[in-house]
Amino acid sequence: MSFDEIIDRHGTHSVKWDAMEAIYGVPASDGISMWVADMDFRPPQCISDAVAKMHEHGVYGYYGDDAPYREAICWWMKSRHGWDVDPAGIFTTHGLVNGTAMCVDAFTNPGEGVVLFTPVYHAFAKVISAAGRTVVECEMNNIDGRYELDFDAYDAQMTGNETMLVFCSPHNPSGRVWSKGELQAVAAFAKRHELILVSDEIHHDLVFEGNTHIPMANIAGIEDRLVMMTATTKTFNIAGSHSGNVIIADPDLRARFGARMMAMGLSPNSFGLFMAEAAYSPEGAAWVDDLVQYLDGNRKVFDAGVNAIPGLKSMDMQSTYLAWVDFEDTGMSREEFTARVEQNARIAANHGPTFGKGGDSFLRFNFATPRSRIIEAVERLQTAFGDLQ
Amino acid sequence: MSFDEIIDRHGTHSVKWDAMEAIYGVPASDGISMWVADMDFRPPQCISDAVAKMHEHGVYGYYGDDAPYREAICWWMKSRHGWDVDPAGIFTTHGLVNGTAMCVDAFTNPGEGVVLFTPVYHAFAKVISAAGRTVVECEMNNIDGRYELDFDAYDAQMTGNETMLVFCSPHNPSGRVWSKGELQAVAAFAKRHELILVSDEIHHDLVFEGNTHIPMANIAGIEDRLVMMTATTKTFNIAGSHSGNVIIADPDLRARFGARMMAMGLSPNSFGLFMAEAAYSPEGAAWVDDLVQYLDGNRKVFDAGVNAIPGLKSMDMQSTYLAWVDFEDTGMSREEFTARVEQNARIAANHGPTFGKGGDSFLRFNFATPRSRIIEAVERLQTAFGDLQ
Ligand SMILES: Cc1ncc(COP(=O)(O)O)c(C=O)c1O
Ligand SMILES: Cc1ncc(COP(=O)(O)O)c(C=O)c1O
Repeated sequence: MSFDEIIDRHGTHSVKWDAMEAIYGVPASDGISMWVADMDFRPPQCISDAVAKMHEHGVYGYYGDDAPYREAICWWMKSRHGWDVDPAGIFTTHGLVNGTAMCVDAFTNPGEGVVLFTPVYHAFAKVISAAGRTVVECEMNNIDGRYELDFDAYDAQMTGNETMLVFCSPHNPSGRVWSKGELQAVAAFAKRHELILVSDEIHHDLVFEGNTHIPMANIAGIEDRLVMMTATTKTFNIAGSHSGNVIIADPDLRARFGARMMAMGLSPNSFGLFMAEAAYSPEGAAWVDDLVQYLDGNRKVFDAGVNAIPGLKSMDMQSTYLAWVDFEDTGMSREEFTARVEQNARIAANHGPTFGKGGDSFLRFNFATPRSRIIEAVERLQTAFGDLQ
Repeated sequence: MSFDEIIDRHGTHSVKWDAMEAIYGVPASDGISMWVADMDFRPPQCISDAVAKMHEHGVYGYYGDDAPYREAICWWMKSRHGWDVDPAGIFTTHGLVNGTAMCVDAFTNPGEGVVLFTPVYHAFAKVISAAGRTVVECEMNNIDGRYELDFDAYDAQMTGNETMLVFCSPHNPSGRVWSKGELQAVAAFAKRHELILVSDEIHHDLVFEGNTHIPMANIAGIEDRLVMMTATTKTFNIAGSHSGNVIIADPDLRARFGARMMAMGLSPNSFGLFMAEAAYSPEGAAWVDDLVQYLDGNRKVFDAGVNAIPGLKSMDMQSTYLAWVDFEDTGMSREEFTARVEQNARIAANHGPTFGKGGDSFLRFNFATPRSRIIEAVERLQTAFGDLQ
């Protein structure tokens, strides 16, 4: 398979392509969709084969015996991330927005504060607020185009009402891979303020060469307040399957989470399970290696092109396919740079403020698409901001 | 397609077939699985085609634009059930166990009572209890092998702490289709005791000729406390897609339910949506007509065979593929008749007590399988209880 192949997703119930015009005013006819975090690639053959096999058998009944599915997850986490997972600690949620919501529901009470290091993936704040909890935004410092955590400031910000921290590792939207020291500091912060630490590691497989993602589960001393979240969906581009894994080592937290899963009547759909069992395999792993290389190539093209425009700065990233571009130095208003991107360049990108404090001058660009589109997008941006050259 | 075709489901992650031996001790080698409520048939070609199309396109990203999906639901409810649905009132949950749980969560408080007319589908009680609400079992009267609701008794049973009624229409496990008068009485009971009425109509399409299912939504005067639940999954045998529809006309109830959907981070998987859009079509309708005829044929064979065994009584049913067989008149203990079914006849059937008060002397048999298996099952039961002849 080639990641260069252009697959037309218009009219396929793709929110990324089919809702672009309605939401951003970017024309479906020749707009480039760089918002929603899914990729314009097919998943590996092993996943297509799993779906073909389901189709061939043709009976889509209730799923049973998830032992091989659990084993596949354990194998992946061990072999790709050096992380020992207890198969009994795996809960399958309907994706990780649901997973996050279930954590908020299971481990916090209405009115309590849930901490986020912002800017961060926007759905965290959405489910926290919708559940009647308070979003506590701890803004990261942007030090020369790199996010740093400022624990002195965050310590001062805590009121004692906070009971959970939702952490994004690797980080969406900046693509930051956290160092061991940083992870230890995050863990220490969670302990110091008695917060349940939810570590959303959905992007853990999409890490560029030369960088290493460390699972929070491998940081000593945090096990008893740690909830891990992973999924096949970003890695293999199967978000439509709405499947995610909440993985809990601590027996008490595990029991509390399991009780809420039961109370919400949640059990997984069979497509997500069949696909995951196929994905977490040597064949899936080889495909991910190729994918990450391709994404890294896209990143280089995108960053070089964007950073050549005076006033635009694409943040240095070590992972993900989501580039976080700062328009601050253009001196333009948010309305102005956004209009140039959407109307002149005809590109749909996520608006920075959705990601919380610190996002105002940014747009997020999804570059998981064939390279020819990235080249085209860069050219359009260079034209749209041509007067700055 | 032929419903007579035997499709081997062993080793296909079918809980019905693959967990039978572990749960019931019925051997996988030659046991007949008649428990879990899915069918051993392929869904209609339009659904297989929808999956094939997804597979061919191959990109399983985030789903967008559910307008045609909502339209398909509205068309089905109108053309098959004479029920006008407002597309804006449809919520897609992860199946109806989740749908029931979301209703309990959205409309009741911990400690409050949720009423069930028992025996009834076992997962209702499960999610109610797991959510810390009290299951209030209002037992139906078995009048000459037909369940009747006894509102005088239920009125006396109410304490004022009850806030919801979960009603099953058509009824699982008896296959009862409720009359208009009965539905009006249920609605009046809900109003009298100020209960939110959740009407689970998942079996509404599986109604035998000569009987008519009336949606509770068509009963006057209950709109402002009514929550309807339907799904493609029983009708078309696609339970693995874990999709269901909670349909709410009342603006206040709709807003409250929507708020909880958001707080739980729930949005549907794309497989369920693609399949539903394909299913709720003229082609799907024609298939259902054939299916129901076939099921009715199975019912006749099963009932005739079982009722020929002295002491066994399969309840008269007007719908569903779930036969509810009373062993009371065998004079045997529950252990004894169950052992004969499982060990002698090598049939796995659901145990009556799981369905709540009134289920003790029953087993529930799923006959949605090729007719040759029903004939075989009946022969085995006749042998297992041969001493009663
Ligand atoms: C950090 C993070 N968590 C969760 C999700 C969404 O997960 P799901 O589709 O499983 O709900 C995303 C999607 O972009 C994400 O970036
Ligand atoms: C009355 C009733 N409601 C709900 C369900 C299950 O629904 P789901 O598979 O959508 O959770 C069943 C399954 O047998 C049922 O009989």
